[in-house]
Amino acid sequence: MTVPVGTVGVVVQNIERCDQQIIDGLADCGVATVHEAQGRKGLLAEYMRPIYSGARIAASAVTISAPPCDNWMIHVAIEQLKQGDILVLAPTSPSNAGYFGDLLATSAAVRGCKGLVINAGVRDVRDLTEMGFPVWSKTVFAQGTVKETLGSVNVPVVCAGALVNPGDVIVADDDGVCVVRREEAEDVLGKARAREANEAVKRARFEAGELGLDIYDMRGRLAAKGLTYV
Amino acid sequence: MTVPVGTVGVVVQNIERCDQQIIDGLADCGVATVHEAQGRKGLLAEYMRPIYSGARIAASAVTISAPPCDNWMIHVAIEQLKQGDILVLAPTSPSNAGYFGDLLATSAAVRGCKGLVINAGVRDVRDLTEMGFPVWSKTVFAQGTVKETLGSVNVPVVCAGALVNPGDVIVADDDGVCVVRREEAEDVLGKARAREANEAVKRARFEAGELGLDIYDMRGRLAAKGLTYV
Amino acid sequence: MTVPVGTVGVVVQNIERCDQQIIDGLADCGVATVHEAQGRKGLLAEYMRPIYSGARIAASAVTISAPPCDNWMIHVAIEQLKQGDILVLAPTSPSNAGYFGDLLATSAAVRGCKGLVINAGVRDVRDLTEMGFPVWSKTVFAQGTVKETLGSVNVPVVCAGALVNPGDVIVADDDGVCVVRREEAEDVLGKARAREANEAVKRARFEAGELGLDIYDMRGRLAAKGLTYV
Amino acid sequence: MTVPVGTVGVVVQNIERCDQQIIDGLADCGVATVHEAQGRKGLLAEYMRPIYSGARIAASAVTISAPPCDNWMIHVAIEQLKQGDILVLAPTSPSNAGYFGDLLATSAAVRGCKGLVINAGVRDVRDLTEMGFPVWSKTVFAQGTVKETLGSVNVPVVCAGALVNPGDVIVADDDGVCVVRREEAEDVLGKARAREANEAVKRARFEAGELGLDIYDMRGRLAAKGLTYV
Amino acid sequence: MTVPVGTVGVVVQNIERCDQQIIDGLADCGVATVHEAQGRKGLLAEYMRPIYSGARIAASAVTISAPPCDNWMIHVAIEQLKQGDILVLAPTSPSNAGYFGDLLATSAAVRGCKGLVINAGVRDVRDLTEMGFPVWSKTVFAQGTVKETLGSVNVPVVCAGALVNPGDVIVADDDGVCVVRREEAEDVLGKARAREANEAVKRARFEAGELGLDIYDMRGRLAAKGLTYV
Amino acid sequence: MTVPVGTVGVVVQNIERCDQQIIDGLADCGVATVHEAQGRKGLLAEYMRPIYSGARIAASAVTISAPPCDNWMIHVAIEQLKQGDILVLAPTSPSNAGYFGDLLATSAAVRGCKGLVINAGVRDVRDLTEMGFPVWSKTVFAQGTVKETLGSVNVPVVCAGALVNPGDVIVADDDGVCVVRREEAEDVLGKARAREANEAVKRARFEAGELGLDIYDMRGRLAAKGLTYV
Repeated sequence: MTVPVGTVGVVVQNIERCDQQIIDGLADCGVATVHEAQGRKGLLAEYMRPIYSGARIAASAVTISAPPCDNWMIHVAIEQLKQGDILVLAPTSPSNAGYFGDLLATSAAVRGCKGLVINAGVRDVRDLTEMGFPVWSKTVFAQGTVKETLGSVNVPVVCAGALVNPGDVIVADDDGVCVVRREEAEDVLGKARAREANEAVKRARFEAGELGLDIYDMRGRLAAKGLTYV
Repeated sequence: MTVPVGTVGVVVQNIERCDQQIIDGLADCGVATVHEAQGRKGLLAEYMRPIYSGARIAASAVTISAPPCDNWMIHVAIEQLKQGDILVLAPTSPSNAGYFGDLLATSAAVRGCKGLVINAGVRDVRDLTEMGFPVWSKTVFAQGTVKETLGSVNVPVVCAGALVNPGDVIVADDDGVCVVRREEAEDVLGKARAREANEAVKRARFEAGELGLDIYDMRGRLAAKGLTYV
Repeated sequence: MTVPVGTVGVVVQNIERCDQQIIDGLADCGVATVHEAQGRKGLLAEYMRPIYSGARIAASAVTISAPPCDNWMIHVAIEQLKQGDILVLAPTSPSNAGYFGDLLATSAAVRGCKGLVINAGVRDVRDLTEMGFPVWSKTVFAQGTVKETLGSVNVPVVCAGALVNPGDVIVADDDGVCVVRREEAEDVLGKARAREANEAVKRARFEAGELGLDIYDMRGRLAAKGLTYV
Repeated sequence: MTVPVGTVGVVVQNIERCDQQIIDGLADCGVATVHEAQGRKGLLAEYMRPIYSGARIAASAVTISAPPCDNWMIHVAIEQLKQGDILVLAPTSPSNAGYFGDLLATSAAVRGCKGLVINAGVRDVRDLTEMGFPVWSKTVFAQGTVKETLGSVNVPVVCAGALVNPGDVIVADDDGVCVVRREEAEDVLGKARAREANEAVKRARFEAGELGLDIYDMRGRLAAKGLTYV
Repeated sequence: MTVPVGTVGVVVQNIERCDQQIIDGLADCGVATVHEAQGRKGLLAEYMRPIYSGARIAASAVTISAPPCDNWMIHVAIEQLKQGDILVLAPTSPSNAGYFGDLLATSAAVRGCKGLVINAGVRDVRDLTEMGFPVWSKTVFAQGTVKETLGSVNVPVVCAGALVNPGDVIVADDDGVCVVRREEAEDVLGKARAREANEAVKRARFEAGELGLDIYDMRGRLAAKGLTYV
Repeated sequence: MTVPVGTVGVVVQNIERCDQQIIDGLADCGVATVHEAQGRKGLLAEYMRPIYSGARIAASAVTISAPPCDNWMIHVAIEQLKQGDILVLAPTSPSNAGYFGDLLATSAAVRGCKGLVINAGVRDVRDLTEMGFPVWSKTVFAQGTVKETLGSVNVPVVCAGALVNPGDVIVADDDGVCVVRREEAEDVLGKARAREANEAVKRARFEAGELGLDIYDMRGRLAAKGLTYV
């Protein structure tokens, strides 16, 4: 069932998810490669940074549209989590508040949640780091939230500049966060793997001292554009 | 003695400080819990970030009101430090300059200073990290400062959006920085410990797989607000 | 040969570089000291941050003036690298795109490149960290670039607010990035070493508990300015 | 026909548009009222500001997904304009470049275009102001663009944080920019007019000196929450 | 009666205000002069900008401490307004929401309110401009707010980096916003008028072609510092 | 005589300036056209905005390298002004302070100064607007400055990301600020006029309803790149 972006007060309980093998394959490829493989689309804004270095994951998005400074819907969303999901929270108005901390992470992790992407703040980051619960957020801020106003769960959201549908695949690592349409994930994985194979060949040539100018045969085109060596 | 915010050219030598046990107790609780326990007030702006991860401290504020790009008053303030204090510097006009580095940290640490909170820049961060001297700052920047214009020491300051009186308790960790009024610190500690005890119970329930929806008895109120499951 | 800032479509192949011993000496001193020693000039903007902590380098600048979101000129620049150089990329219009990743780093490292300073984005930061290839950048972003438009290599550039000529010495560490004119590098090194020697003496006095107020003989001047102790 | 967000290289020629009377009605109501009437959704980011004050328009969106710093697709989009449309340009990567100036405005205006919403830069703003061609943009910047890479026209775009489908109604005035789903526009207009009628009544009561506390009957609820008068 | 910064749920009904002649005098002097006259303190952050040019006012502050994205307390505050007051709203957590529009302005104006200073957003700016109701705000944004959570009225607040007590004098014009302690206002006015008189003399000399170098007798001190003419 | 960027304590008294007819010609063309004509270089950062709309000027740069929050050098620079010059101030460290107000403008205007470009703050903007003294600045802020530390006058400076040599031509209007090398100004003017002539022809064709797709013969190249109409 399809619900419009911005719908308030709805929880969609049954969403389709990708095959786990596709998701795992996308995690192996990482954000930069997946983003290139799908035609340079799907990146969230560059201000979305991990709370600690080294995590690289892919997971199915359980989306949360939340009012500013109100984290009530996270509790609602956690019930909808299945093993291998990731929470994706987009506030309906800009907020830096710390919507999420170690208690919510504990609850989410018990249900198999692999992390959180949030276009707002997060707190308890030392605990989250110790738990190995990765978060990509706009900021870190201890500011508390209220539980007063409804949002929605598993509706399409615009998060940090990217449209995320429930069930889309989120790929996240130290380079940022990328969303892959569920329907396109298998195709994107194929292209990403081809890209990786190609990069392995290129890497060997670079390591052997060849130049990109020659590997990619750029000299003629540069000269045609008028590049002058002095 | 009380001196107004913004007073220039004054050093207040005798300030009252909290009992050390209260301060240590607040350190144990950490920023997020203390901030909640005192009614969600007292947070400095979210751009105040630690130069390295993992430090969690509480200390009595020795405040510095300093002109932009002028660190002269830090030397004056260091003489006023007692064991267990923290320096809190607020420039009187926005500045990114690096007011503080490893020499000043050496001098402050000798006098028992536990760290620095500065709404401006800091430098020599590699040395400070090796020394284990924690700093929460607006930025890291090597830009030097001058010693030309007076400010004040131990007057009330507005630092990163929060009013800090000399002798107030500063709590700081990876989630940011929070100020607790000296007069309220004992009461806040009591509430923070109660909050921690409550969280320990909740954590066990979350770990056992219970949902926040049930632990906090939210389902009825959500339904009353009109939340619809589809 | 001198080429104006902003010249498009030119690669200067022979640039003068500093003596390696001078460069190594500047690396030992670090950004904060070198910046002070040359009269507080030469710092790049404070938003230029390292992708990992702990690197401290100095190297000769091979400069790149690149169109926004177009990394073609990096391939051209790599051919111009000599052992001990650093790439310095300034886009001709603001850009957050990820111009540089692990393949380019592999190629640059093979030719002896010590790192990258880029007033734009970088990606593959986990790989770069594992390689030990340091980068100071405005942001981390996976966004890809094109190879369509000419820029220049080894022309003067304005990078993050500082003028960088090819062959100038770049000093970079956790405090940021500083540029030293090639012609002034030997003189700056002398002043930086003198400053370090002086700081070692001061550090010993601070460690012994002396105050800056006394070490720098500030009390009289503070009193003359009207500082009042209450 | 529906094309996914992020599709590259496609021009959708036939899009559905709202009835002109509905569009005109939404213009009369303005951004703040329309945004409230549709449940507080649809606002573009607050950094989207008009180049001059006083314009208030509504129009059907002809969307442009454009590469960073490349305005080629605007020429393609202008051919798709019908009387009463507005151009909505979202770059695929953040850009401040000046994609649009007086020549393009001349061409668009000839075809009945009512303005431009662009999550990037605009230039020739003095000419545009004299022409009475309103633009809401992220910035004003003279930086030129290239014509090298394809984007798309009339595909869904995420512009300044909001999803915009071709044919959706854009309402824009001094308070910012709001998008109304084409399918919801008639319903939203009804609610907006009801809201306006209600506001007219309220305004008269405010002008007569009544307080919101009484008009909205807030005193009891405030007291129940614990508000104390001292 | 004094209430601490950050107190929640309190309305202080009787506040002291300055003599109207003093307030009017400060308005005549304007922000830059008043700020200088009181020792360069009291400025709110530079991002606080007027919604239209040309207003210059001074007024007694009726302060509002409001939760993020919740404008309930404005209704409470309006009841506390007396002729010649200004509303000063500081959110307890950063917010861009549009707390205030033409209906609230109508209500406030009826009670003699001279304007609004708000460290958040404002909307209906076209109407406010037509009404001649000046607002200095962090941003303009149509985003609506809720009425769910208590704040306080006439407690001290930190607004855009400055401490504002109820009854302090707010001076605001095209240069920004400055707060003057109520107790210091008469003294500051005296200094500001002296400064204005002095500036009138200086202006005449400048208009006659004299240089600041001579008027302020700077040449000797510049030479002593080592300024060299080449 | 040539002085390096960053030289402190020097006033260069004799600088070369462009022919006035060339300068006037560049003013007629405006920023966007001049920037394009010289190969899309020379723009200052997009945050440099005019304090009022409608000014369009060109003038010879008298440059000021000033310490942060210290406006002493402006007095020195004013003595160096000749009829038709513009002041260009670059702080040596980021600053928002209000370096310049109506008294300095009076003094500068008496000497024939046409305006100010400042990568910092300005104040007294209402007076400056009434005087018709245009300023392009990073911000408007009443914050005062000191007169303690030397800078330089008429040395090369990096201002808002662009290198400006004394005597270079500054072109500034509502689109921003552009610098033209003095040596290149005549050539750039020629190209700018050619560009204007060409634009006049294009404008007539656009007004007649022709499309850019046809005027610039783009259809074939778009098709070759794979653009698809659906």
